[in-house]
Amino acid sequence: MNEIQKRLAALRKEMAVRNMDVYMIPTADFHETEYVQSHFMARAWMSNFSGSAGTLVVCRDCAGLWTDGRYFIQAANELKDTGIDLMKMGEEGTPPMAQYIYDHVEEGHAIGFDGRVVNSKLAEALAHKVKDKQVKVLCDEDLIGAIWTNRPALPKEQAFLLDIAYCGKSSADKLAQVRAWMKEQAVDVHIVTALDDIAWYLNMRGNDIPCYPVVLSFLIIEHDQVRLFVDEDKLDETLRAQFAQDGVTICSYDAVYKAAAELKQDAVIALDKGIVNYRLLNALPQGVEIKDRKNPSQLWKAIKNETELENNRRAHIKDGIAITKFMYWLKTNIKNHTISEASAAARLEQFRREQEHFIEISFDTIAAYQANAAMMHYHGDEEHCAMLQPKGFLLVDSGGQYLEGTTDITRTFVLGEISDQMRHHFTAVLRGMINLSRAKFLYGCSGINLDILARQPLWSEDLDYKCGTGHGVGFLLNVHEGPNGFRWKIVPERRDSETLEEGMVTTVEPGVYLENEYGIRHENELICRKGIKNEYGQFMEFETITFAPIDLDGIDATMLSDEEKTWLNGYHQAVYDKIAPFLNEQEKAWLKEYTRAI
Amino acid sequence: MNEIQKRLAALRKEMAVRNMDVYMIPTADFHETEYVQSHFMARAWMSNFSGSAGTLVVCRDCAGLWTDGRYFIQAANELKDTGIDLMKMGEEGTPPMAQYIYDHVEEGHAIGFDGRVVNSKLAEALAHKVKDKQVKVLCDEDLIGAIWTNRPALPKEQAFLLDIAYCGKSSADKLAQVRAWMKEQAVDVHIVTALDDIAWYLNMRGNDIPCYPVVLSFLIIEHDQVRLFVDEDKLDETLRAQFAQDGVTICSYDAVYKAAAELKQDAVIALDKGIVNYRLLNALPQGVEIKDRKNPSQLWKAIKNETELENNRRAHIKDGIAITKFMYWLKTNIKNHTISEASAAARLEQFRREQEHFIEISFDTIAAYQANAAMMHYHGDEEHCAMLQPKGFLLVDSGGQYLEGTTDITRTFVLGEISDQMRHHFTAVLRGMINLSRAKFLYGCSGINLDILARQPLWSEDLDYKCGTGHGVGFLLNVHEGPNGFRWKIVPERRDSETLEEGMVTTVEPGVYLENEYGIRHENELICRKGIKNEYGQFMEFETITFAPIDLDGIDATMLSDEEKTWLNGYHQAVYDKIAPFLNEQEKAWLKEYTRAI
Repeated sequence: MNEIQKRLAALRKEMAVRNMDVYMIPTADFHETEYVQSHFMARAWMSNFSGSAGTLVVCRDCAGLWTDGRYFIQAANELKDTGIDLMKMGEEGTPPMAQYIYDHVEEGHAIGFDGRVVNSKLAEALAHKVKDKQVKVLCDEDLIGAIWTNRPALPKEQAFLLDIAYCGKSSADKLAQVRAWMKEQAVDVHIVTALDDIAWYLNMRGNDIPCYPVVLSFLIIEHDQVRLFVDEDKLDETLRAQFAQDGVTICSYDAVYKAAAELKQDAVIALDKGIVNYRLLNALPQGVEIKDRKNPSQLWKAIKNETELENNRRAHIKDGIAITKFMYWLKTNIKNHTISEASAAARLEQFRREQEHFIEISFDTIAAYQANAAMMHYHGDEEHCAMLQPKGFLLVDSGGQYLEGTTDITRTFVLGEISDQMRHHFTAVLRGMINLSRAKFLYGCSGINLDILARQPLWSEDLDYKCGTGHGVGFLLNVHEGPNGFRWKIVPERRDSETLEEGMVTTVEPGVYLENEYGIRHENELICRKGIKNEYGQFMEFETITFAPIDLDGIDATMLSDEEKTWLNGYHQAVYDKIAPFLNEQEKAWLKEYTRAI
Repeated sequence: MNEIQKRLAALRKEMAVRNMDVYMIPTADFHETEYVQSHFMARAWMSNFSGSAGTLVVCRDCAGLWTDGRYFIQAANELKDTGIDLMKMGEEGTPPMAQYIYDHVEEGHAIGFDGRVVNSKLAEALAHKVKDKQVKVLCDEDLIGAIWTNRPALPKEQAFLLDIAYCGKSSADKLAQVRAWMKEQAVDVHIVTALDDIAWYLNMRGNDIPCYPVVLSFLIIEHDQVRLFVDEDKLDETLRAQFAQDGVTICSYDAVYKAAAELKQDAVIALDKGIVNYRLLNALPQGVEIKDRKNPSQLWKAIKNETELENNRRAHIKDGIAITKFMYWLKTNIKNHTISEASAAARLEQFRREQEHFIEISFDTIAAYQANAAMMHYHGDEEHCAMLQPKGFLLVDSGGQYLEGTTDITRTFVLGEISDQMRHHFTAVLRGMINLSRAKFLYGCSGINLDILARQPLWSEDLDYKCGTGHGVGFLLNVHEGPNGFRWKIVPERRDSETLEEGMVTTVEPGVYLENEYGIRHENELICRKGIKNEYGQFMEFETITFAPIDLDGIDATMLSDEEKTWLNGYHQAVYDKIAPFLNEQEKAWLKEYTRAI
C-alpha cells in the first residue's frame, strides 16, 4: 500500500463510521480564493495530483479526480497507482461529478464534505441532486483534518494598512458606501467573505496567500456595527487604531460561524451564494431572509479611483524597467551564457525586487521556451525546465505586487532565428493587441462587444486562442479580478462581462499556441477612460499603462496597416521616454534601437 | 368641429355606453405585421397622424398619441387642432402609455381596445397594470369599425404557390419538421399567426400587404390536421391542389376564433404571445396549457436552403442591373435634366420592373437628397420632395421582390461637388461596411460580437448611427426578418441577436447622418457561410451577394488600408463581371470606369 492508498483507506474508515458513501474534496479555501495557501491543499495531499484545479471524490470502493484539459497529462502521471480514476472534464464519456456522486451513494446513506471549502451555490445544487435518494449531506466536519498529520498551519503573516496615499479612499467612506447600498436594498446585514472585497473595504493588505496580498478573514457589516473575523495576531497597531476609528470590532477568525448563528431571527441578509461557504450559510438562523446577490464591492473596487490609477501608472513604470532590463540581459546573454527557463524567471524576479515598494510577484512567472509556451499554463521548475537556445521564442508572462498596485505583462522574446510563419504569427497577435488597445466605443459596451477586435487578425487566418482576451486586474490585490474582461461568449460563472466603466483596468492578451511548436502572447494593461460626450452618447477609450518593448525582431512590418504602425511607433516612443531615464548607458542605447520607429 | 374632432366625439359616445374611460388604437393588423394594409390604418384615420408607427389613446376628456423620434415633427404638424396631445417616446417627462391609461381610468370602470390588433404579451401587461383598480378590459369589439364609414375593405388579392424550384423545400417537409418539433416539445397544437411564417410553411405567397408578399391568414397545426384560415377567394387551383395533397383544410379567415374556442380542453398549445393576438388567446378554452415560445419557423425560414440561396443570388444580379442602370442614368443626366427625389425613385422602380420575375418593391423607396438623408426614414412624395442638384449626395435605399427572392440595397450617389468632410465620412462608412463584410469568426458568434467591426471607423471619430448595423432579410418575404441581425446591444423585443447560422442573409448598412447637412449609407446583403473547421472550431464567413458600384467619386482612397482596397477592387471587379453582360455599350463603358481598381 502506497502513501496515497493509506490516506484513502484512513478517510474511508472515517466515512464508514458516519455511514457516508461519498466524500468530496475540492481545491478551495474558506473564501473561494483563486489560489490557495498550503493549509488548504487537502486535495493534493489526498490524491498526489499537484495541479491548481481539481476535485477529488472518494467513494467506498473507488475514487475519481475531476480536472480540466490543462492537467490531463500531469494528472494521469501523478494519479498512477493511487487507485484514483482521472475524470477528464469536457471530454465525451466523462460523467458529471454530481451524477457520479449520486450514482455512488445508497438510498438513505450520507455524502459529505467540509462545508467551509464549498460555496453555497454548489453545495445547494449537490444537496438538491441527491434529494430523491433521502441522502444526508454532512458538511460540518473536515475529515481530512482528522487524518492529515503534519498539515501545514494556517498562515500567521502580518497584515498592514494601505495608506490613503496609495488607495485613495478611506475605509470609512467605503463602509458608508456599502451601508447606503444596504439601505437601498432594504438589507440589515451584509456578509462578505471574498478576501479581496474585505481587503478593499478596510484598506487592509496581508500575506496569507502566495501572490495575493490578502488576509484570511470574514466581514459582517450591519448598520450599527462591523465585525472583522481574523487572527488578531496579524494586526499591527496602525491597523487596530484604524479599525477602532472606523468602529470595526475584531473577532477571532473561526468565531464567524457562531456570530452568524446569533444574527437576529428576522434579519434580512445580503450575501453572494457563489462565494459564501455552505457552513456559514447553514449557520444562519432559520428565520432570516437571504438576498443572494453579487457583492457590490466587486464593481466598486474594479472602478479604480484617480489615486489608484496614478499609483498604478507608477507601478507599471517600475515593472517596465524590470522587464526592459531583463530583455536587455536576455537578448545580450543568450548566445554566450547558459540560461534556463527557471533561471530566466529568477533573473526577472530579481530585477523586480530591485524596484522600490516591490512586495512579491503577482502570480507564478510563466517562462516558457518554444513548444512549452504552447501549453497555456506551463510552469517549469528548476529541476524540470528547458534550456534556452539562441533561436525561437521565449514567452514570459509575469507580474508584480507593488504598494502602487498590481501588474501583469506578457512579452514574447525572439532569441535568434525564427521562421517566416513564426514572424507572421507574432505580428498577427500584435495586430490583435493593437486593434483592441486603440478601440473607441460608446458607453454601454462590454468585453463581449470588443473581443473581436483582438481576435480578427487570427480568426481571419483560421487561428484562435482558447481563452478570453483579457481580465480585470486588482489594485495591490488579485491579478485576476471581475467584473470586467474581454471574451466573446458570456460564461456566467466567470462574472467578467459587465459594462466597461471608466477606471476599470483590463489586460489585453491575445495569442497563438501551436502544439509542439511554439506559443506567442503579447499582453498589456488598459485603463478604460471617458472620451468625449456628444449627441451619440458617451465615448470611451483605453489608456495603455504597460510600458516595455515589443520585440521588433519578431515583427513583419509589411503586415501592419499605417494605423497599426503609427500606434506601435508611438507606443515604443513612450516606452523609451518613460523607461530610459532609469537605465544605464548600455541599456539605454540598446533600448533606443529596440524602440525605433518602423 | 373638424373631422378628427367629430370622429373622436363619435368614439367617445361608443365608449360612454360601455362605461369605458380609455380606448387604445395601435398601428397593427391581426398578425403583428410590420407594415399594415389600409383596412388596418385606424390610428391614422382617427388621429390624422400618417406616420408608420404610433399608438393613439383616447380618454373621456383628452387623448394622446405616442410615437418615436422619427416622427416628432411630422406628428406635431398633423395633430394640430385635433385635441390630441403628442407624447414623445423616449423624451423626459413623457408618461409611459400604460401609466397614462392607468391614470385615466376610474376604479371599477373599463378600458378597451380591439383585441385582434394587440398582441397577447402587451395586452396581458396592460391588464395586469390596471388590475388593482378593478378595471374591466373590454377587447371583443372594434369600436373604430363601428364609426368608420367608407373603411377600406380587407384585401382580396390572389395568392399563389411558390414553386419548389424557387423555395427548395416542400410544404410537406416543412409540416413534418414542425410536427417533429411539436412532438419534442410535447405539444398537441401549434398556433401560427405571423404571416411570413405561414407563407413559409405553405410555400404560399400573396399580395395582401404593400411590399410584403403575404396572405392574411391563420394556421392551426395539429398532429392529425392542419387548418388554414383564409379568404378562400384568394386561392387558385394550384394552391388548392397543393393544400389537398398536404392535408391542409381551408377555413374562412374569421373562423379562427371559433376554431380556437373548440380546441380540446386539455390541449397543450404552443404559441408566441408576442405575436398571437389577444382575442385569439382569450378564445382558447380555460383548461388548455399554453407554452409561450417563439415560433421555430422564425429560425428555420431564416436559414435559407441552397435553392433559395442560389435564387437569391440571381435576384441580386437583377437588382444590381437595375441599380447600375439607374446610377448611370442619374449621374449622366443630373447636370442637364430636372430630377426630383420622387422622379428618381420612380425611374429606379422602372428599371426594376424591366427585370424578369419582378413582383413589387420590397419597401417604399427612400430617395433622399442631402439634408433629407439625415432623416433615417425620410419619404418624399411627388408633391413634397427635393429637386436634385449637381452637387452633394443622393441616398437611395430600395429593394425588390422577385420570384427569386427579396433584396435590400442602399447606395449613396455623388451628384457633383462634395466637401472634404463629406468624402471623409463617405469613406469611413465604406470602411465599416467592408470590415464587417470580410469578417471571419468562430461559430457561436451573434451580431452582438461583430457589430463593432462596422462601427469602429465611425466610433474612432466620435460618430455613430443610432440604429442597428443590419437586419435579416426574408426570401420573397418580409424585408425585415429575424432572428439574425447586427447590433451592439441586445434589444429583446427586436429578436435579432441569435447566433449566426450558415444560410442566414443579413444586411450590413452603417451610415453617417448629420442633421441639416447630409446622410450617407452603404448597404449590401451577406450570406453567412461555413469556412473551415479545425481544432479551434467551425469558422464562419460572409458571402456578399449585392452587386452594384459603390460610387468611387465619394472615396478618399488614402483612408483605405491595403486590405480594404483589395476588398473594394475585388468587389468592383465582380460587379463588372456580373452586371456588364446585361448593359448596353454606353452603360458598359461607364461601368468599366466606375468599377476601376483604385
